[in-house]
Amino acid sequence: MDYNKQSIKLHKRYQGKFEIKSRVSLKTKDDLSLAYTPGVAAPCMEIAKNKEKSWELTNRKNMVAVVSDGTAILGLGDIGPEAGMPVMEGKAVIFKEFAGIDAIPLCINTTKVEEIIKFCKQIEPTFAGINLEDISAPRCFEITKRLEKELSIPVFHDDQDGTAIVVLAALINSLRVTGKVIKDLKVVVNGAGAAGIAITRLLISQGVKDIILLDSKGTIYKGRAKLNDVKKEIALKTNKSKIKGNLKGAIKKSDVFIGVSKANLVNCQMIKTMAPKPILFPMANPVPEIMPNLAKKAGASIIGTGRSDFPNQINNALVFPGIFRGLIDSEKKKVTVKMKVSAAIAIAYSIKKPTKNNLLPKVTDKKVVKAIANAIK
Amino acid sequence: MDYNKQSIKLHKRYQGKFEIKSRVSLKTKDDLSLAYTPGVAAPCMEIAKNKEKSWELTNRKNMVAVVSDGTAILGLGDIGPEAGMPVMEGKAVIFKEFAGIDAIPLCINTTKVEEIIKFCKQIEPTFAGINLEDISAPRCFEITKRLEKELSIPVFHDDQDGTAIVVLAALINSLRVTGKVIKDLKVVVNGAGAAGIAITRLLISQGVKDIILLDSKGTIYKGRAKLNDVKKEIALKTNKSKIKGNLKGAIKKSDVFIGVSKANLVNCQMIKTMAPKPILFPMANPVPEIMPNLAKKAGASIIGTGRSDFPNQINNALVFPGIFRGLIDSEKKKVTVKMKVSAAIAIAYSIKKPTKNNLLPKVTDKKVVKAIANAIK
Repeated sequence: MDYNKQSIKLHKRYQGKFEIKSRVSLKTKDDLSLAYTPGVAAPCMEIAKNKEKSWELTNRKNMVAVVSDGTAILGLGDIGPEAGMPVMEGKAVIFKEFAGIDAIPLCINTTKVEEIIKFCKQIEPTFAGINLEDISAPRCFEITKRLEKELSIPVFHDDQDGTAIVVLAALINSLRVTGKVIKDLKVVVNGAGAAGIAITRLLISQGVKDIILLDSKGTIYKGRAKLNDVKKEIALKTNKSKIKGNLKGAIKKSDVFIGVSKANLVNCQMIKTMAPKPILFPMANPVPEIMPNLAKKAGASIIGTGRSDFPNQINNALVFPGIFRGLIDSEKKKVTVKMKVSAAIAIAYSIKKPTKNNLLPKVTDKKVVKAIANAIK
Repeated sequence: MDYNKQSIKLHKRYQGKFEIKSRVSLKTKDDLSLAYTPGVAAPCMEIAKNKEKSWELTNRKNMVAVVSDGTAILGLGDIGPEAGMPVMEGKAVIFKEFAGIDAIPLCINTTKVEEIIKFCKQIEPTFAGINLEDISAPRCFEITKRLEKELSIPVFHDDQDGTAIVVLAALINSLRVTGKVIKDLKVVVNGAGAAGIAITRLLISQGVKDIILLDSKGTIYKGRAKLNDVKKEIALKTNKSKIKGNLKGAIKKSDVFIGVSKANLVNCQMIKTMAPKPILFPMANPVPEIMPNLAKKAGASIIGTGRSDFPNQINNALVFPGIFRGLIDSEKKKVTVKMKVSAAIAIAYSIKKPTKNNLLPKVTDKKVVKAIANAIK
């Protein structure tokens, strides 16, 4: 199927993938008198007396804002808030279909850190949680950190945490398949944006000792020029041998390649230099760092991409519905590292016997949402 | 029916009057590949190349934001953004039911003029229009005026314009019933908030010459103490005899009383001092300035309130669905005085032969939306 052509067709046909649906009847005068004036004054006054009642008398408990500034849409980069909307609408309908959550896509017209923080704080009274989406690094780190402190509802940056969780889940099952051990792995993460940094942090927390992170200028190491604060911090915990240069050198003898960068940056020759039974997660969207058929030919043992049209989709769509279902149902105010790891384990072990071509559950598998939500509780 | 009790029951039962509904199928891997990655990259790139495509490839064309800071909820006052939500949800479901519009309620956590303006500008890429709601005067005047200039999508403050339009419609039909003539009317408007000011402005534009506006300190006249800028401006065009004092004095010999103030401020004695065939629109919500049965006993010729449980509901729910349907369908960027008057005439003349007890169409009458939308085009 030509996904591009068909997707344009679908988007033209529907002109919007979601809509609002009333849950109450509005056919009679009495219906209106209860849902609107004069009756509506009563629930308003109940909440005015006790703000907590907004969780019982409105849709707030089930509502999540999907907020993006359009600066890092998929692997397409800074294409603006209008152009980010098809992705945010897609997330909204996935939220509803798989977790029953009412997500509102809000693509906003500012890229300033302080303004995005303020925006999220302003909408707090309307929502149960905030899903930040496709906001470019390094701004996303500051925004997420500050909002975790300043909001009393949970905030989750899907490109960081969603991706890190699903990668950890895929890695857990890759180890179950290959027999490799997490503390002995050599891991290369290509791409030091939101996803790359968050994946690296989560893998280190789970015992990965040898991990090299690369940005567009090559490997990251302590003392390298042109490192922002987040990269400086991660340089202290990664690439302890201070390997310099580009991916071609860094990937040698590694067990795991994780790509959150751009199309076609990996070639077959590089895979041939990796350790035995190499595990590759080339996850750039829409076109991965190497196409699965090529990677397989070059000797990859396990291959997972971000796409639903290849086996082993490593997509945060597996994560965010369950995370928010769990956060909302258990009334949690923060997303902790422990929750992230529990979520990854829940995803991984929802497959009883993982294989090379059946690493992760399908995004369409509704059991996963429940498993994650339970793990978070 | 005990609306308060029943409304609390309804709100507790539904815990949110609206929800998100997907318009696309998400059952298969292919469904996901078109609505989300990888296919979704194609519509994103189309919009990135040409922002105007966001009107074709997303729900933007049908989406209106209902923005409130919770400072003037119904007649209840500043009860906060959380407590305003039941009203905003009510508007959202009315938008959908009567105009097919997807309205998103956003109750925000700031009351600062500049921040509310900035907020509305930030969400512009997501919406086709902005319905400001229950934002208290005089801040609402500055916010609306500035947004009319600074946004490229239409903004409509329902408490100002929605109320003014439906009052003009009710007045047009009251004149058809009583035979009174607009230029000879003596009108008293009690309440100089968003609605009172907007009603007064619109009536003056339609030829009303003798009109007195009152705030909580009494009649407004040129040179009075404690007038904000908007009241100073309106003082130049109203109360030319500079009548001082309270409502009891001002209402004497008037043809029309319009109440957008508080419960029970009018008594029978006052009505008895009005001109023959007095027309009363006591519209305070949820409890009017005088209850219709009392007003009738005191001699009122025509009585209309904001409530759906009495005859002659003068409620902006008659206006906003049609206004936005018209604005969206005809791709208008501003709401003009001409549009407001056309909308009022369309509402009034949707009743072929108005009578004392059948002044306006029912809010549940879906023909009104079409009539207003056509009038705007």
